[in-house]
Amino acid sequence: MDRRSFLRTSALGGTAAAASTLAAPAIAQSSTSCVIVSTWPRGLPGLGTGAERLAARITELTDGAIATEYYAAGERVGAFDVFDEVSAGNAQAYHAADYYWKGLHPAWCYVCAVPFGLTSLEQNAWMHHMGGQQLWDELGDDYNIKGFLAGNTGVQMGGWFNKEMNSADDFRGLRMRIPGIGGDMMTNMGVSVVSLPGGQIFESLTSGAIDATEWVGPWNDYFLNLHQAARFYYWPGVHEPGSALSMGFNKSWLTGLPAWQQAAIEAACSEENDKMLSEFNANNGIYLDRLIRDHGVQLRRFNEDIYDAFGDAAEATFDELRQHSDLANRMHESFEVARAQVGGWMNIADVPYLTERNRVLGME
Amino acid sequence: MDRRSFLRTSALGGTAAAASTLAAPAIAQSSTSCVIVSTWPRGLPGLGTGAERLAARITELTDGAIATEYYAAGERVGAFDVFDEVSAGNAQAYHAADYYWKGLHPAWCYVCAVPFGLTSLEQNAWMHHMGGQQLWDELGDDYNIKGFLAGNTGVQMGGWFNKEMNSADDFRGLRMRIPGIGGDMMTNMGVSVVSLPGGQIFESLTSGAIDATEWVGPWNDYFLNLHQAARFYYWPGVHEPGSALSMGFNKSWLTGLPAWQQAAIEAACSEENDKMLSEFNANNGIYLDRLIRDHGVQLRRFNEDIYDAFGDAAEATFDELRQHSDLANRMHESFEVARAQVGGWMNIADVPYLTERNRVLGME
Repeated sequence: MDRRSFLRTSALGGTAAAASTLAAPAIAQSSTSCVIVSTWPRGLPGLGTGAERLAARITELTDGAIATEYYAAGERVGAFDVFDEVSAGNAQAYHAADYYWKGLHPAWCYVCAVPFGLTSLEQNAWMHHMGGQQLWDELGDDYNIKGFLAGNTGVQMGGWFNKEMNSADDFRGLRMRIPGIGGDMMTNMGVSVVSLPGGQIFESLTSGAIDATEWVGPWNDYFLNLHQAARFYYWPGVHEPGSALSMGFNKSWLTGLPAWQQAAIEAACSEENDKMLSEFNANNGIYLDRLIRDHGVQLRRFNEDIYDAFGDAAEATFDELRQHSDLANRMHESFEVARAQVGGWMNIADVPYLTERNRVLGME
Repeated sequence: MDRRSFLRTSALGGTAAAASTLAAPAIAQSSTSCVIVSTWPRGLPGLGTGAERLAARITELTDGAIATEYYAAGERVGAFDVFDEVSAGNAQAYHAADYYWKGLHPAWCYVCAVPFGLTSLEQNAWMHHMGGQQLWDELGDDYNIKGFLAGNTGVQMGGWFNKEMNSADDFRGLRMRIPGIGGDMMTNMGVSVVSLPGGQIFESLTSGAIDATEWVGPWNDYFLNLHQAARFYYWPGVHEPGSALSMGFNKSWLTGLPAWQQAAIEAACSEENDKMLSEFNANNGIYLDRLIRDHGVQLRRFNEDIYDAFGDAAEATFDELRQHSDLANRMHESFEVARAQVGGWMNIADVPYLTERNRVLGME
C-alpha cells in the first residue's frame, strides 16, 4: 500500500468507512452476527490490515455461519473503549494490544509485551505450552473476556527521538509517548510519559506536545509519517520485544457457539498470529532501507550503559507491579520461568545461528 | 510424554497402532474421507504428535465434514513413500519434511530447510509474503501436490558426534546421517553421507554403521535416545536453521472441496505451524538441561573455522544445484532475496535484542 493512499483513506476515515468485511455470508440462512471493534486505524498496514483480514477469515472459515462486521478505531467506539464494549456484550470481539488495559489490571501487559520481555517465538511458547494462556484465561474471566493470540509485531524499534541519546541522563525530562509497562519503565528513567492511540502520534510530535515516541517498526512507522516528525531512530527496542496482539471475545457469546465454530475462531486467530508476524518481518527491512535512503533517517543504537539503565528501571517497575495482586505476581513468575527457559535456548539456537550465518555471508 | 513409554509404544508400532484420529466425525452424514500418511514415528513428540494433532484438527474445524485418518511412518506406507502415495491419489495428504524429495527436484529442499538458510521467522516471511509459496505451488503442480506450511522445528542442533570436531579436517571420512542439501554440503566436507528416517538412526549409530548423525534438537533427540549412542552434541546447527514441515495435499482432491473446507485445511496447517514451533521452543531448553545434567552429554560449539568451511561447502553445493533447472535457479534467487532482506532486519531486531536482554539479565 502506498503511504499517500493510506493517509488519504484514513483522512476520509470515520464511520463512512465502516462496513461488513464480506458483502454477504455464503450461507446466510442461519448466521450469527459478530461485531469486531479494534484499536487500529482502518487500513494501517500490519496491525489494521491484519485485524481486517482476520475478521473476514472467521466468516470464510465458518462458511458464513459467523458473519463478522469489523469497525476500526473510532468507527463505532474509540480505540481505548473497545474492551468495555466487548466485556459488556455490546460487541462480540476486539482486536487490540492488551497492555492498553493496564489500568484495569497490570497482568494484561504480560499478555502483550513488557520491557525485557519475550520475543514472538518466546511469547508463543509461553502462551501455548508453558501456562501463559491459562493465566490469561484466569485474568479474562473477571471481565467475561476470552482472548487468543492473533498477531505479533516482532521486535519493535526503540523509538523516534529529536536528539541523540548518549546516556541515561538524556532521558530525564523527555516527554515521550510510550504505553504499558514500557511507559512505567520510562517514568523510572525520568521521562514524562503519555499514552496515545496510533492515530494521534504524528500531530503530537510535530506540534511539540511530545519530544519522542515509539510506535512499532519501520514498516508501520513509515505509514504514520513519524520520520517527518523526528530524525533519530533507535534500536534495539527494549520495551516491546514481540508485542502479541489479541482478539478478545465476549466469553458468554463465544462459549455459546457450536464447538466447531469456536475451533474455527481459534484457528483463524492462530493463523493471523503466524501471518501478521511474517508480514512485519517481510517488510521491516525493506522499509528501514527506504527510511534511511529516501528520508535521511539516522539509525542509532542504544549503548550498553543505556540498556543497563533500562534494566534497572524495568526491575523497579516489576517489583512494584508484583505487589498489585496475587495474580499479577503469579503472571510475573510464570513469565520469568518462560523467559529463562526459552531465552536460554535462544542462546544456543537462533542467536548464534543468525550471528554465524550473517558473519559468514558478510551480512553484518 | 515419558521417554520409556514413547519407546514402548513405538515398539508395538506397526499397523496395530493405525486408527482414525477421531472415533467418529461430529456430522457423519456427508463426510469426505482424507487419508493422511506421514514420515514420523507414531507419538514422536513434536513432529509426530504435531502431525497427529493437525489431522484431528482438520476434522474438528470442518465439524466432521472431512474425516481424517492418520497413519504414521510404516503403518500404511514407508516414510519415504508418502509423496508418491499422495501424488498418485492413494492418500489425500502427507506430513513430511519436503527435502526428502530432493531426488525428484532439488527445489523441494528450499521449501523445508537448506544450510545457511532461513530460520522459522524468515521462512514464514518468505513463504507467506515474499513469493515463496508461489514457487512452491509451481513446483508442486508437476506432481499434483499442493503444500502448506504445517510445523517447524526451529533452529536445529548441529548433531551428535563420537569425537570432538576441532577443524574442517575432522569431518573427512566421517559417516554421517544427514539428509537434504545439508547432506550435500557435508559431502563437500568429505563426509560419507547417508539418509535414514528417524526410526532407524539409533540402531545405525550404536551398531557403528554411522559415526555421527543429526536429527532435530534436544527435545526430539532425547526421545530417539541419541545421547546413548554419541557423546558430543554440537551447536549452532547450520544445515537446518528452521525446518519447515509441510502438509502436502493431492491437489485434485483438495481443489474439489468446497471453498470453506479448503480454507479450514489451510487454517489448520497454519495453526499447527504456529503451535509446533512453539512446542519445540518451549521444550528444547528443558531437555537440553536434562541431557547435560542427567546423561553426561557434552555440549560443544562449532568454531568459526568450521563454520567458514561449512560456508564454502554450502556455496559449492548451491552453485551446482542452480544448474539443475530454471525453477531451481529461480527458487534459489528468491530465497537469497528473502535471506538478505529479512536476515538484515534480524541484525537490527531479534539478534541484538536477545543479546542485550540476556546480557543485562545475566542469562549468558
